[in-house]
Amino acid sequence: MQNFIYCNPTQLVFGKGSIAKLGDLIDKKRKVMLLFGGGSVKKNGVYDQVKAALKNHNTVEFWGIEPNPKVETLRRATAQAKKYKIDFFLAVGGGSVLDGVKLVAAAARYDGDPWDIVLDGKAKDSLDYACVITISATGSEMNNGAVISCEKSGEKFAFFTSKYPIFSILDPETTYSIPLDQLANGLSDIFVHVLEQYMTTINQSRIMDRWAEGILQTLIEIAPKVLNNKCDYAIRSDYMLSASLALNGMIAMGVTQDWATHMIGHELTAFTDIAHGATLAVIYPALLRAQKEQKRDKILQYADRVLHISGESEEIVIEKAIAATESFFRSLGLKTRLFEYGVDENTIDKIVDRFLERKSVFGDNNNIDAPIVKKILLSCK
Amino acid sequence: MQNFIYCNPTQLVFGKGSIAKLGDLIDKKRKVMLLFGGGSVKKNGVYDQVKAALKNHNTVEFWGIEPNPKVETLRRATAQAKKYKIDFFLAVGGGSVLDGVKLVAAAARYDGDPWDIVLDGKAKDSLDYACVITISATGSEMNNGAVISCEKSGEKFAFFTSKYPIFSILDPETTYSIPLDQLANGLSDIFVHVLEQYMTTINQSRIMDRWAEGILQTLIEIAPKVLNNKCDYAIRSDYMLSASLALNGMIAMGVTQDWATHMIGHELTAFTDIAHGATLAVIYPALLRAQKEQKRDKILQYADRVLHISGESEEIVIEKAIAATESFFRSLGLKTRLFEYGVDENTIDKIVDRFLERKSVFGDNNNIDAPIVKKILLSCK
Repeated sequence: MQNFIYCNPTQLVFGKGSIAKLGDLIDKKRKVMLLFGGGSVKKNGVYDQVKAALKNHNTVEFWGIEPNPKVETLRRATAQAKKYKIDFFLAVGGGSVLDGVKLVAAAARYDGDPWDIVLDGKAKDSLDYACVITISATGSEMNNGAVISCEKSGEKFAFFTSKYPIFSILDPETTYSIPLDQLANGLSDIFVHVLEQYMTTINQSRIMDRWAEGILQTLIEIAPKVLNNKCDYAIRSDYMLSASLALNGMIAMGVTQDWATHMIGHELTAFTDIAHGATLAVIYPALLRAQKEQKRDKILQYADRVLHISGESEEIVIEKAIAATESFFRSLGLKTRLFEYGVDENTIDKIVDRFLERKSVFGDNNNIDAPIVKKILLSCK
Repeated sequence: MQNFIYCNPTQLVFGKGSIAKLGDLIDKKRKVMLLFGGGSVKKNGVYDQVKAALKNHNTVEFWGIEPNPKVETLRRATAQAKKYKIDFFLAVGGGSVLDGVKLVAAAARYDGDPWDIVLDGKAKDSLDYACVITISATGSEMNNGAVISCEKSGEKFAFFTSKYPIFSILDPETTYSIPLDQLANGLSDIFVHVLEQYMTTINQSRIMDRWAEGILQTLIEIAPKVLNNKCDYAIRSDYMLSASLALNGMIAMGVTQDWATHMIGHELTAFTDIAHGATLAVIYPALLRAQKEQKRDKILQYADRVLHISGESEEIVIEKAIAATESFFRSLGLKTRLFEYGVDENTIDKIVDRFLERKSVFGDNNNIDAPIVKKILLSCK
């Protein structure tokens, strides 16, 4: 285990009816901006619950933060926040709305252009923000990271802000109305978040391995039920909680992380608009195949403890584990090959060129460069 | 899963050499009281590291917080803290020193007697405190609970203070000098902390079960190595981290808890002075036997997932699981029967009388009363 510092001050407010606590969670002296996505929260009753809980608060609303939130939209939100002297931001929606709010809350304390903060990779300051999360996937509700896109440049980058959400409200009943494809993308995103922190071989920890395996096992167990049983409160509770625990630092203590699949996935989304979770389902099995020697010991452990695969030889076990991982994504209804999305070699070349231009080298062993990205993308063609 | 609020703001500073960070972690304007136990930190070099890191800070020292910290000692520390206008407390030692500091930091903001706070079960206010933990067992380094004894009345109670540790420094190298019996007691304490949150059948969560099982599996795997390989850094890292994760709220989200073994164990310590972890090793298997019907489903899951026990019938599996649990404690070198400590029926009656006087009813199903305590204690005679 390597040295680490862990601190996560977010207050997780979990369970049915929790939105009603908003009135007590936000000081009435605050000038609150409520930020939303496209309007699904008006259909599922969440908007009404939020407004009822904050009926005695001073609020303004901003609508229209899109999936893969765009800096162009967030610039407008920032301008409004400054105009109204907002000092508390509440994201109501999925991870994209919250990611957008993280940039707006930081940009409201910054004189320059919000995109500077994204390019810098970190925000120096931020106003307070919190969320009512209604789609569990990104884990954004218990961390200080966000991923923002720029429509003009076609770029998509992660950045870290200076504050964690003050609180995050998770009511499993709000997930009952999530469309199937979004649930599938979310489950894929959560599964790969765990793998990005688990499937490494340097700076290992027995307890962190067990916890990562615990989330993977839970996801494999609940995924069919999440997709089939719309209103199963217990299942949706474990789904929501798994998403938060997958990316809040609790399984990352002292261990090396990877994130190569996310790096490649972000570019795939930037060039093709394939949803984030869906890109991961394509890239992860291919990455595992490309790195099966480097990740050998951990793939074998994953095969044994998570997938319960045994075989005549280690080679066969590894092949079966990679195939089972791809099958898991397919069981969610997700595609796992680029051709299924109509992505051709021309697009692959554009993605590879971008890594080449930036001279990117990444992954847990810091050895994935543009030629290896090309090999991975061609192998999942 | 039941509704819950989780928030744990403690900064965990983990790894070798971390004590040197103390100088930056505590503001130089603070008037710091350093609190210690009996002096082992002078022998293992921790004291020197702390003093070197805080050489430019304004500090006073208080020595002599004993195992099962006594309010009589803590009253003296509180008086000194008030006299020197201390505004930051640093516990250097094991869980007992830190538990004591939690009371002192609260009592320094209270006009009455410190024991009032313990009897009240909670502190309304507290000054800031932190710790350098050198014996991992209680998990006190990442929670706001503490257990305090009163020598005069022979009582021992838990209370909750109003603040979490500001930070907790864990350097696995500081554990190399812990005596074997303290390591064994610590491992027992950690193991039972997990079981108290896991071995219940109401308000269940798949993900919380997996995480609890993950700590139990880790402890079973590392325990022999903790006891045999004094200077194995990786093993000691997982030992320290397991202790913190076992009792910081991370495996308690939304699930019912038990704590009956701790309730009975505290009384056993109060009457006999048997170390806390050692009492749990005696009581836990007996409690499991007494409640094997009530806890049936979870014992079977524990047998399958943690102990990998299979058998011809559920009855046999349950018996084997309880026997394996007792064997685990014995593998630590701990006694699991009261007669081995010379505890007789007279002492058992005194303990039972105390529960009778208080009309105590506790446990995950709130159905353990004095007669059941008697049955449990007689069965582990």
